[in-house]
Amino acid sequence: MNDTPIHPFRSYFEDLKIGDSLLTHRRTVGEADIVAFGGISGDYFYMHFDEIAAKDSQFGKRIAHGYFVLSAAAGLFVSPAPGPVLANYGLDALRFIKPVGIGDTIRARLTAKRKTDRNRKDDKGVGQGVVAWDVEVTNQHGELVASYDILTLVAKRS
Amino acid sequence: MNDTPIHPFRSYFEDLKIGDSLLTHRRTVGEADIVAFGGISGDYFYMHFDEIAAKDSQFGKRIAHGYFVLSAAAGLFVSPAPGPVLANYGLDALRFIKPVGIGDTIRARLTAKRKTDRNRKDDKGVGQGVVAWDVEVTNQHGELVASYDILTLVAKRS
Amino acid sequence: MNDTPIHPFRSYFEDLKIGDSLLTHRRTVGEADIVAFGGISGDYFYMHFDEIAAKDSQFGKRIAHGYFVLSAAAGLFVSPAPGPVLANYGLDALRFIKPVGIGDTIRARLTAKRKTDRNRKDDKGVGQGVVAWDVEVTNQHGELVASYDILTLVAKRS
Amino acid sequence: MNDTPIHPFRSYFEDLKIGDSLLTHRRTVGEADIVAFGGISGDYFYMHFDEIAAKDSQFGKRIAHGYFVLSAAAGLFVSPAPGPVLANYGLDALRFIKPVGIGDTIRARLTAKRKTDRNRKDDKGVGQGVVAWDVEVTNQHGELVASYDILTLVAKRS
Amino acid sequence: MNDTPIHPFRSYFEDLKIGDSLLTHRRTVGEADIVAFGGISGDYFYMHFDEIAAKDSQFGKRIAHGYFVLSAAAGLFVSPAPGPVLANYGLDALRFIKPVGIGDTIRARLTAKRKTDRNRKDDKGVGQGVVAWDVEVTNQHGELVASYDILTLVAKRS
Amino acid sequence: MNDTPIHPFRSYFEDLKIGDSLLTHRRTVGEADIVAFGGISGDYFYMHFDEIAAKDSQFGKRIAHGYFVLSAAAGLFVSPAPGPVLANYGLDALRFIKPVGIGDTIRARLTAKRKTDRNRKDDKGVGQGVVAWDVEVTNQHGELVASYDILTLVAKRS
Repeated sequence: MNDTPIHPFRSYFEDLKIGDSLLTHRRTVGEADIVAFGGISGDYFYMHFDEIAAKDSQFGKRIAHGYFVLSAAAGLFVSPAPGPVLANYGLDALRFIKPVGIGDTIRARLTAKRKTDRNRKDDKGVGQGVVAWDVEVTNQHGELVASYDILTLVAKRS
Repeated sequence: MNDTPIHPFRSYFEDLKIGDSLLTHRRTVGEADIVAFGGISGDYFYMHFDEIAAKDSQFGKRIAHGYFVLSAAAGLFVSPAPGPVLANYGLDALRFIKPVGIGDTIRARLTAKRKTDRNRKDDKGVGQGVVAWDVEVTNQHGELVASYDILTLVAKRS
Repeated sequence: MNDTPIHPFRSYFEDLKIGDSLLTHRRTVGEADIVAFGGISGDYFYMHFDEIAAKDSQFGKRIAHGYFVLSAAAGLFVSPAPGPVLANYGLDALRFIKPVGIGDTIRARLTAKRKTDRNRKDDKGVGQGVVAWDVEVTNQHGELVASYDILTLVAKRS
Repeated sequence: MNDTPIHPFRSYFEDLKIGDSLLTHRRTVGEADIVAFGGISGDYFYMHFDEIAAKDSQFGKRIAHGYFVLSAAAGLFVSPAPGPVLANYGLDALRFIKPVGIGDTIRARLTAKRKTDRNRKDDKGVGQGVVAWDVEVTNQHGELVASYDILTLVAKRS
Repeated sequence: MNDTPIHPFRSYFEDLKIGDSLLTHRRTVGEADIVAFGGISGDYFYMHFDEIAAKDSQFGKRIAHGYFVLSAAAGLFVSPAPGPVLANYGLDALRFIKPVGIGDTIRARLTAKRKTDRNRKDDKGVGQGVVAWDVEVTNQHGELVASYDILTLVAKRS
Repeated sequence: MNDTPIHPFRSYFEDLKIGDSLLTHRRTVGEADIVAFGGISGDYFYMHFDEIAAKDSQFGKRIAHGYFVLSAAAGLFVSPAPGPVLANYGLDALRFIKPVGIGDTIRARLTAKRKTDRNRKDDKGVGQGVVAWDVEVTNQHGELVASYDILTLVAKRS
C-alpha cells in the first residue's frame, strides 16, 4: 500500500491501482460544528444538544452527529474542481465505531479496493468505471471512529 | 403495512412490529441548504457550487449533496427528545438514485424490516435490541431519490 | 396539572383541556448559538459579542440573545409536521427574568391557560379556536429565565 | 412626532421625549434567512420548510418565522456599541399581522411611548429608567406585518 | 486627532477633516467564527481547522482567518443604513501583524488620511470624493493585529 | 505563462518560477452567500441587504460583499493540507472593479510575480521566502471583478 498525498482520488480509472491509498489532512471538531450540523440537518437529537441527558448517557458527553463525521470526512478528500471522479453514488457497510466528541480531531484514509469497468460511455462519450473505496475515519488517538465503503463513478482517460 | 403518524420511531423494542412504517413530513431543499451544507462539510464539489460546470454535467444543474439528503432525511424522523431509540450506529446499501435539485421537496418513509434481540443490558440495566429500518427518500413527484437501511439500537421497556 | 409527554401541543381544539401541560426536552446553549443568532438577526449588541464590556456589565459575562431563548424554546415544542396548531400569531407579557449564559441548558413548560372558540371556519371549512398557553423557560437549576404567553390558532377536529 | 435618524434609541433617559421616533433602514428577507433561522431555532414548522404544505395553507406560500421578523427588526435598531440602552428586558402585545414572505423587505418604526423613572441606581451608581417603545414592523408596501411594545432599561446621563 | 464616537464614517465629503478618527466597539472572536468563516469562504487552511498541525506551527494554536479579521473589522464600522459612504472600493497595504486566536477581542481605529475630490457627479447628480482611511485593528492587549488603508467613495452634501 | 492545474500554489520556494500561473475552479455566488457573509462579518451594508435601496443605487441590484469575493477566491486556491505555503500575511492594491451579483460565477487566476529570499530559517530550521502573487478574480463573462496582490510566506525544500 503506497501512500501518495491526495493523488488517488484525482486519478482516472485506468491509472488507479487496487491498494492505492491516501491519508487526508485533519479537522478538529468543535461545538460549533454540532450546532451548525444540527441546524442544517434538523437533527436535534439530545446526544448532540442536551448536555445533561448526554452526560447521563452511555457516552457521558455530547457527541457530534454521525452524519457530520461522514460529511466532514468527505470534505477532507472530495476535490472541488472537476476531475475524473464524477460522483459518489453509493455507500455500504457504514458503522459508527467510536463517538466523536468536542475537541476530537479526525482524518480519513481511503484505499481503492475494487474496480469495475462499465462498458458504456456517458452522453459525452466518456467511458466510466466504478471504484469502491474503503474509508476509515480515525481520531487523534488513531482510534477508528467510522468505517465504510463508498462507490464512486470514475471517468476513463479515453 | 399500517401507516401510523410518527409513532414507530418512538416505540420500545418489544412494541415494534416488523412492517411498522411511518411517512415523515416534508422539507423543500433550497440553494441556502447547498451553501450551508458545503460550508459545514467542507465539500465544495463543483456539482454543488459551480453552475457552469453543473449545467455541463450529466445532471444539467446544481444538485444538493447526497449526504445533505441523508442528513435532512434523518432530521425528518429523529426525535430530539430522549426515547427508546438510543443510537443510529450503522447504515447499509445507501444508493443515491436521483439527484435532488434546488426547489425539490423531499420526505422519507421508514419501515421496520428486522429486529434482533441483544441479550445484554447496558450499564443502567436497560435491555436493548437492534432494529433495521428500510428508508426510502422520495421527491415531490414520488420518485425515489435515495434508498438505504439504517441500524438503530432500541431500548426495551423492561 | 397532568404531565403528558409532547401531546398537548398536538391536540385538536376540542381535545385540549385547560391545565394540560407539557415539559419539553432540553437544549444546551453555546457560544456558537450566540454567534449564529447575532449573524442571522443582525443584533450585535455588546452583551453578546464583546467579552470585555460584558464582563464589566451587570451580568458579568456574555449572554445569549433574549430572542434566541424565545426562538430556541419554540424549537423545543413546535411540531414540524402539519397538525392542529395552525399558527402562533401572538405573544404577551414576555419578560426575560434571568440571563442565559454559555453552557446553560434550557427547557420550556407549556400549560394551556385559555381556550376561545372562534365561530368561523377557514376557507377549507376548518373550524378554529384560539388557545393561550403559559410558557415558562427554565435553566438547568430550575430557575425561571423567561416567562410569556403565546396565542395559537388551533384547528377543530370537525 | 419628529423623525430623527437613529437617534432616540441612543438617548439617555433624561433626553428622551415621549413621541420621539425613528424609522430604521430596511432588510430584504430571503429563503436563506428562513433556512438559517429554522436551523438556529430548531423550529422547522412546515409553513417555513415545506413548500407543498405551505402552498396548500391559508397563506399559500412559505413564510418567514415570526420570531425571525422580531429578531431581524431588533437587528435594525439595536446598537452594537455600549450606550444608554442597557437591556431589552420585556415585550408586550406582540401580534403577527401579515406574513413576511421570501422577497419582502421590512423595516421598523420605534416610538417612545412611556417613561418610568426607577429611583434606584445600579451597582455602578448609574441611575436607570424604563422606556416603553411602540414598535411597528412594515413591509415594502407599507403594510403592518408585526406590532408590539418593547421595554428597555435606559441609563440616566449621570 | 479628535475622537468622535462613530461619527466620521457617517460624514459627507465636505464635513470630513483629515485626522478625524473613530474607535469602534469590540468583538470577541470564538471558535464558532472560525468554523463559520471557513464554511462561507471555503478556506479550510489547517491553521484554522487542524488543532494538531496548528499546535505544531509557528503560532502554536488555531487562529482566525485573516480575512475574517478584515471582514469583522468592517462589520464594526460599516453603517447598515444608506449614508454618505457609497462604497469601499479598494484596500492597500494590508498586513496581518499578529494572529487573532480564539478568545481574543478585536476593535478598529479609523483615521481619515487623505481626501481627493472627484470632479464628477454620479447619474443622480451627486458629487463624490475619495477618502482614504488608515485602519488599525488591535486586540485586547492593545497590540496591533492588522493594518491597512481603505478607499471609500463618499458623497458630497449636495 | 504556462498553465498548470493547481500546482504552483503547492510548490516549494525553489521550485516556483516567476510566471507560474493557475486558474482555479469556479464558484457561483448566491443570496445565501450574502446572508451568511453579512451575518459572520456583521457588515449589513444596505447594498447587500436592502433590495429597494440597492435597486435605487449605482449598481441597480444587491451585490455580494467585496470581502466575500476576496474570501471566496482564497477558498478556491488555498490548500487545506499543510504544505509549502505557510501563510498569506499581506495584500496590496486590492480594487473591486465590477460588482458580483446573485447568480454570478467567479474564479481566480494566480500568477507568481516576485520571489524574495529571506535569509533566515524558522525555529524548526525551515528556510523561507516571500512570494508575491498577482490575483485576478473574474466572472462568468470573463470580466475582471477584483484585482490584487497577495504576499505569501513559502517554505524552502531544504
